[in-house]
Amino acid sequence: MKIITISREFGSGGRELGKRLADTLGFDYYDKEIISGIAKGQGMDEGYVEEALDHYTGQRFPLTFRRSFAGAGMMQAAQTKLLLEQKRVIEGIAGKGRDCIVVGRNADVILKGENPFNIFVCAQIEAKIQRCVERAPEGECLSEREIEQNIRRIDKNRAATREMIAGGRWGQRWTYHLTVNTTDWIIKELTPAVADFAVRWFGRKT
Amino acid sequence: MKIITISREFGSGGRELGKRLADTLGFDYYDKEIISGIAKGQGMDEGYVEEALDHYTGQRFPLTFRRSFAGAGMMQAAQTKLLLEQKRVIEGIAGKGRDCIVVGRNADVILKGENPFNIFVCAQIEAKIQRCVERAPEGECLSEREIEQNIRRIDKNRAATREMIAGGRWGQRWTYHLTVNTTDWIIKELTPAVADFAVRWFGRKT
Repeated sequence: MKIITISREFGSGGRELGKRLADTLGFDYYDKEIISGIAKGQGMDEGYVEEALDHYTGQRFPLTFRRSFAGAGMMQAAQTKLLLEQKRVIEGIAGKGRDCIVVGRNADVILKGENPFNIFVCAQIEAKIQRCVERAPEGECLSEREIEQNIRRIDKNRAATREMIAGGRWGQRWTYHLTVNTTDWIIKELTPAVADFAVRWFGRKT
Repeated sequence: MKIITISREFGSGGRELGKRLADTLGFDYYDKEIISGIAKGQGMDEGYVEEALDHYTGQRFPLTFRRSFAGAGMMQAAQTKLLLEQKRVIEGIAGKGRDCIVVGRNADVILKGENPFNIFVCAQIEAKIQRCVERAPEGECLSEREIEQNIRRIDKNRAATREMIAGGRWGQRWTYHLTVNTTDWIIKELTPAVADFAVRWFGRKT
């Protein structure tokens, strides 16, 4: 079984790259499916699950300390429960034994034992803003400044969740096998380059 | 003309990767040749040039401020002169108009106008120590702790020089097109993966 995990900065095109890689390599693809799996398992609304997981609030304090704050503590307990459920769902994906790509959700940490090929996708801030502008839902009129704030906020949350789960810092180069900067690429053209790299990774003798 | 620059953490195998990439792609290769070029141009000893460039002392203050300290200022003035000469030598390499690989020396910054493909090579600290142990010159018996201190010191100097030249931080993922972690690779096996990626980069339509 070959597993590729993709961690990505918001707006970097990591999800598109993941989807295209899955098509190119004939791998299963998991992204929003994880949220659906959690929601189903917990009898919750998908939107709520996504919101709760993407706005993780427990950045700074160890779990025990955080829990001593009653209000925030309850929220965090709910989020922690969702993170555990997320772990279960991701382990279930690997349990199917099929080649797959998992986008986001710290799958690289959760599936460490399966020796996944871990990719981090980044881009320069201007390129990320541009991508968000081009892909904005109809009727959404955020200024570039608002988009930039969104990008930074979302990535801050991703970093916080990662630190909580894995201890190490999000995006650190030693943590991933390959860090790809999409700034000067069209994702469609980038895909075969990353796919070939991954194939060589899985085929290496070491 | 295609230019690949390789920045690398000490002990990550970046130089070996660069040499092998040059062989695979049929590119010219520059590494120590830059030091030789500077030494020749300045009528200086190669060892002195390398030492001066690799122990850049002006980490913290802007050039104008640093120069007001007489003793340190003289040393820094000499180093700044060498950095300018280094820039001239690297620009001369590009001036030849031949496909080439340049390892280290902030060539990605100096040759920005030539649109080089910029690679950063990293590895986990344990892998770097292991590589240094295996490649130690005969008779050199540093402890693993001493090797680790050396690695951190050399990389700190590289980061300081980069910050002085480019303003931005060394090793930041947005600065390079590809960041490759050599930890789980034999460099010989990694080379064609990186070579293919670079070829696709130069061949892209964007």
